[in-house]
Amino acid sequence: MAMARTAQAATVLYRKKFAIALAVIQTVLIVLYAMYSRFSDDPAVIAYMEKLKLPTDHLWEVGNHYAAFQDVQLMVIIGFALMAAFLKRYTQSGIGYNLLIAAIAIQWGIFFHEIILTRARGVLLGVQSLITGNFAATAVLVSFGAVLGKFSPYQLLFMTMIEIVFYTINKYIGHMIYQASDAGHCMYVHLFGALFGLFASRMNLKTFHRTHPQQARTYQSDIWTIIGTLFLWICFPSFNAAFSTEMLRQRALINTLFALLASTLSTFIFTVFVSTDGKFGVTHAQNAVLAGGVAISATASTICHPWVSLVIGVVAGMLAVFSIEYKQKCILDKAGFHDTRFVLSLHAVPAFFGAIMSMVVSGMATENSIGKLNLYQAYPAMTPDDSTNDTLIHSWVRMGKVNFSDGRSGGDQARYQMYTLLTTMLISIIGGAITGLLLSFKWCDMPTAENAFDDGDQWAVAEEGMASFEAYIPVPHAVEMVERSVVADDTVELKKNEMTNEEEIEEVKKDGNGTTPIESDH
Amino acid sequence: MAMARTAQAATVLYRKKFAIALAVIQTVLIVLYAMYSRFSDDPAVIAYMEKLKLPTDHLWEVGNHYAAFQDVQLMVIIGFALMAAFLKRYTQSGIGYNLLIAAIAIQWGIFFHEIILTRARGVLLGVQSLITGNFAATAVLVSFGAVLGKFSPYQLLFMTMIEIVFYTINKYIGHMIYQASDAGHCMYVHLFGALFGLFASRMNLKTFHRTHPQQARTYQSDIWTIIGTLFLWICFPSFNAAFSTEMLRQRALINTLFALLASTLSTFIFTVFVSTDGKFGVTHAQNAVLAGGVAISATASTICHPWVSLVIGVVAGMLAVFSIEYKQKCILDKAGFHDTRFVLSLHAVPAFFGAIMSMVVSGMATENSIGKLNLYQAYPAMTPDDSTNDTLIHSWVRMGKVNFSDGRSGGDQARYQMYTLLTTMLISIIGGAITGLLLSFKWCDMPTAENAFDDGDQWAVAEEGMASFEAYIPVPHAVEMVERSVVADDTVELKKNEMTNEEEIEEVKKDGNGTTPIESDH
Amino acid sequence: MAMARTAQAATVLYRKKFAIALAVIQTVLIVLYAMYSRFSDDPAVIAYMEKLKLPTDHLWEVGNHYAAFQDVQLMVIIGFALMAAFLKRYTQSGIGYNLLIAAIAIQWGIFFHEIILTRARGVLLGVQSLITGNFAATAVLVSFGAVLGKFSPYQLLFMTMIEIVFYTINKYIGHMIYQASDAGHCMYVHLFGALFGLFASRMNLKTFHRTHPQQARTYQSDIWTIIGTLFLWICFPSFNAAFSTEMLRQRALINTLFALLASTLSTFIFTVFVSTDGKFGVTHAQNAVLAGGVAISATASTICHPWVSLVIGVVAGMLAVFSIEYKQKCILDKAGFHDTRFVLSLHAVPAFFGAIMSMVVSGMATENSIGKLNLYQAYPAMTPDDSTNDTLIHSWVRMGKVNFSDGRSGGDQARYQMYTLLTTMLISIIGGAITGLLLSFKWCDMPTAENAFDDGDQWAVAEEGMASFEAYIPVPHAVEMVERSVVADDTVELKKNEMTNEEEIEEVKKDGNGTTPIESDH
Repeated sequence: MAMARTAQAATVLYRKKFAIALAVIQTVLIVLYAMYSRFSDDPAVIAYMEKLKLPTDHLWEVGNHYAAFQDVQLMVIIGFALMAAFLKRYTQSGIGYNLLIAAIAIQWGIFFHEIILTRARGVLLGVQSLITGNFAATAVLVSFGAVLGKFSPYQLLFMTMIEIVFYTINKYIGHMIYQASDAGHCMYVHLFGALFGLFASRMNLKTFHRTHPQQARTYQSDIWTIIGTLFLWICFPSFNAAFSTEMLRQRALINTLFALLASTLSTFIFTVFVSTDGKFGVTHAQNAVLAGGVAISATASTICHPWVSLVIGVVAGMLAVFSIEYKQKCILDKAGFHDTRFVLSLHAVPAFFGAIMSMVVSGMATENSIGKLNLYQAYPAMTPDDSTNDTLIHSWVRMGKVNFSDGRSGGDQARYQMYTLLTTMLISIIGGAITGLLLSFKWCDMPTAENAFDDGDQWAVAEEGMASFEAYIPVPHAVEMVERSVVADDTVELKKNEMTNEEEIEEVKKDGNGTTPIESDH
Repeated sequence: MAMARTAQAATVLYRKKFAIALAVIQTVLIVLYAMYSRFSDDPAVIAYMEKLKLPTDHLWEVGNHYAAFQDVQLMVIIGFALMAAFLKRYTQSGIGYNLLIAAIAIQWGIFFHEIILTRARGVLLGVQSLITGNFAATAVLVSFGAVLGKFSPYQLLFMTMIEIVFYTINKYIGHMIYQASDAGHCMYVHLFGALFGLFASRMNLKTFHRTHPQQARTYQSDIWTIIGTLFLWICFPSFNAAFSTEMLRQRALINTLFALLASTLSTFIFTVFVSTDGKFGVTHAQNAVLAGGVAISATASTICHPWVSLVIGVVAGMLAVFSIEYKQKCILDKAGFHDTRFVLSLHAVPAFFGAIMSMVVSGMATENSIGKLNLYQAYPAMTPDDSTNDTLIHSWVRMGKVNFSDGRSGGDQARYQMYTLLTTMLISIIGGAITGLLLSFKWCDMPTAENAFDDGDQWAVAEEGMASFEAYIPVPHAVEMVERSVVADDTVELKKNEMTNEEEIEEVKKDGNGTTPIESDH
Repeated sequence: MAMARTAQAATVLYRKKFAIALAVIQTVLIVLYAMYSRFSDDPAVIAYMEKLKLPTDHLWEVGNHYAAFQDVQLMVIIGFALMAAFLKRYTQSGIGYNLLIAAIAIQWGIFFHEIILTRARGVLLGVQSLITGNFAATAVLVSFGAVLGKFSPYQLLFMTMIEIVFYTINKYIGHMIYQASDAGHCMYVHLFGALFGLFASRMNLKTFHRTHPQQARTYQSDIWTIIGTLFLWICFPSFNAAFSTEMLRQRALINTLFALLASTLSTFIFTVFVSTDGKFGVTHAQNAVLAGGVAISATASTICHPWVSLVIGVVAGMLAVFSIEYKQKCILDKAGFHDTRFVLSLHAVPAFFGAIMSMVVSGMATENSIGKLNLYQAYPAMTPDDSTNDTLIHSWVRMGKVNFSDGRSGGDQARYQMYTLLTTMLISIIGGAITGLLLSFKWCDMPTAENAFDDGDQWAVAEEGMASFEAYIPVPHAVEMVERSVVADDTVELKKNEMTNEEEIEEVKKDGNGTTPIESDH
């Protein structure tokens, strides 16, 4: 039945087009790597370094990055996959496309990132590159959350390729030009990815997106996502500490864990207050408990007092719960956004808060509070230039621990953190909107109401054990408007009276099998 | 339906009370951390150490602890969560409360542990603190297994706060005063947690606990717990080796793995003999395969011959299988205990056996068998005092590897291991009983038969895909007594004849949908 | 019902026989370990090394192997378990037997491997031994995939014990005599395990194996295996790099990840072309995405250009998809093989391709391409003998980094890689066939059509939530022949016309509940 239903919509021809596009991308990537990349421990590189009497161990030693690499892979490939598994009949697509996107984004992300940063001298591949690639993939996987169930594989393919370009340019501006401090890529990954996805989704909004009955969860699909949440939870400290070294690394681990502990309790506190009957919201537990890890990611290595991390975690958890509950229903819906996996609440809002905090923290950072060496490693642009009399700094420069720079003040650094925040928002919004526009053309075969949110559209799935199929029944526009104002105004009477025939059918269906459409979840 | 059913029992008011209590706890913890804690690599600490010409690297290096930290987090946050997921309609609560308990226990456990050990000079947070906090959380999560499905979130909250106090005091006595050797916290975590939970549960026994039909498992919920078992299995070596250093660490890893290998085979052997039809018991596979890891935890770093670990594993697996099968049915039930997740069999019994083994092993420990340095690192109190002529020991003390101590003999050490065992049992039983008593007051809103063992009571769950709901039908006390003697005496005829009407209904229901209540599992 | 059905087939007596056999095996292993093994940091060993003024740190330091050990355990105990979880009513058996096999194979594998390699001087247990044992277990778990659902626990027991012997002998010949380079055990584990399992399965082929309706998947069981695939995916880099040191390790990590990235995209490309309607095949996604990791395993540490890994990944993914789709249906079925978990496609075919590539790569290896030290560490037999004038090599030998050897040329090395490939195929085929023959005797109680592919046969499972039971209905041989030719020739008309009564029943059943038998999956 499912086959017959979708056979017309997504034709075989379209599927072959996707395969050809993917083949072209993989071929181009192979050619690019063949032309421009080598291993960081290539004999030629080693020989060159030895001629300059430079150390070569860091070119091949994996020790310091191995543990971080393990956790980052676990987070990206398994954690995010399960986060995308909560839709009742879209679990396999969520997990499968997560791997597809990651496999494209890691290859393309490593390449484009290194080429941009080294300005076309070539890519040197080390174990750190793998972490870099995974971070780039994470940005795209966050965006994927906003368009989950609504984009075709074809669209995901192009979104991935384009987003990596915008992501890398934005990170280049923030990291290299503004020299912002963003240990766990709060702005580059979480805020960027969420806004990019939301705007890409906005440009492709369809009426059925907000009311499609297959956006419901089941008891089983919810568990997958809860487990995914836990994987993200345990890997978040490593993720936020992945690029930190020496003393900064332990701080990043501890601050992140403390923020997660606090946002977990905060979620359990505020979820009770936002729901009418005081129950714990499963969606809150799946998302808001992680908000602390997102919010702390900009400042994980620079916060000097553990209690500050706890406070940031509490606020982030609260913001996430409230934004799931109210923003989603009011602001997003009224502005015509649709956000399948709550990336606004889990990524954008806590990341915005975290970016603001990074201004405060950098504005207050002094040698006494976090230590002299730490200060210059966390904020490279605050290191004085070579006219300084400080012999300690001169010795650190000789040891390769820091580089001479501008001697920025804390206030200056805060200003550059703000520039980075604004640039990130600008590029992600414009980039997302452009990408969304490109993907709205007819040749992208965007899923229609018949084949959205359904594994059977693209996958040869085993149907035994699948959740019940519920077809989308179009609701006349006027009624929908009323319904939406009803949600906001709580004038339920109106809704009942003006309910159309189709809506009644849907209403009955919902009661009948007891599924909760995700919008009304708390 | 589930909503209507539970709306009366657990009122919204009660749920808000929980949220307020949790908010108070988080607030107090933030204040305590703000007043008493700093990072171990705080500039002030580093400056102080440098003034004394002491090394500072260990204050911030994560290298040696990172891998252990990763596995311990995986075990606590994911492994234990899935171990608590096997009830047919309580999977989401089991996983969710596991995280809630851990988030409270880690914060409070780190703080109270450090304050007690350093006697109020303050908390120095390093990556090792995170492991310490996770171990404290593990003790509470073991207790949680005994009360799974029967305690409200409110009760879990207070149990966590109180248990951490008793746990820390007991560990302080064992570790600091008696100087017992307990690498993987066999007594402090497994034995303590299990007995604490069993007695807390005992003080709150309700008639319905033993016969509630929702204590059954489903095919799906069983798989979650089997996966949880596997996560514990792979993380156990790291857990038992987490506090061991230098040579002791490799031994702890190998001995733990060997004990697990043996207890796995032992489980598959003995499960065949205890079941009437010779089938493998799923509950056995979920629990007894881990018994080796528990039993070896006290001696993982001090056993000198791999075959000893294998033997301990075999015995532990056997004890766990038999105690699941017989103790549960006879001894526990007759003494009025109820133990949802078999913590008696998985934690208490193997840990008791492990503690006895730690007496034997420490009684036989000599320099020749495990190496001189190893001996003094594993049993600090056996190091001679500074009047020793042994220049090697003097040099180790200068290098900070060992400290002068009492020069205890092996026999003395065995005696102190016994003291620690007895103290642990005493404190956990008294502590559990007191806590259970406190939690039995009316304001704790203990779940009744209508809302125990059911996610729908506290969570806004998606009902599609949930296991069938089975209401508890009270059984007259006399009949229940007969039924219990029937289980023991195997005089099934008696039962059939005296069966009440309600029982028949239940009997039919069980046959109808084929669920196996957990008590009769093998 | 399931109980009644299987009670006759697998009697209680048989089950006790299994338990006794397992008890004998565990007892013998304990005795062997007691007689021949000690820890590598045993005081006697340390004293001996110190007398010879040799370094002892490597005897107990876990640092370099810890991360690899964590990932290898995760891959073997959880990844492979979930890979064996896809059958609709055999999920718990797949996971449970995976642990059982691993627990036997690790114990026996470590012991036999060390005894053979050290020629009976005894087993020295270090953390590296645990990795060695896990690799041995992996070979058996690959074979397990071929016989999944068809072998009794008794048969699995003996297969494990016998296969480890053949595995170790084969690895001894390849690794010690031919001195082949096989970083991730491409030939020793993947090719060997797959062929061994296929031939063991071949000797025990029953008519019902190919057409049993319980070989279908469900939506839920498929998800377990997709998650298992992801665990293998993230652990594969560590697995292939587990035995590599210094510079070779980083290359092994990167090359493996790149091959996986490429085989993932390759799978998504070719799956579209082999299916008639262009949908993604779930079985392809579960298996072929990993083919790159298998194919690169022989050369992961020696490939010098990242683009080569990408190409190997693309080809491996393509081969895996095509072999799932066509080999399975045509070649394997016509030759009377049956392969439940597609080990031919995931392990044998990519590993054969990888072995061929290892000839090419070693034939082209020069000092300039991969570095002098790397060359001699990757291909020990290429190191010159002690008559060399190269002082660098003499100094490396003094530092223990390489040993003097035969000074093989690249061409010679390629020849020895070929010998190893041929020997592996010979030993695995003969070994598998002999083992299969031994296991075909009546006392092995091979599952019949009534109890194959069903958890209920050996496990006391909770039946709520289990997939639908579908009894095997024997098909007359002639019809089956026609049906098979139909699959090959696509002359569907013939089939429809000659369909027997029983077949119609089955046909109707399939349509009714919508399950897809695994053979027709794409």
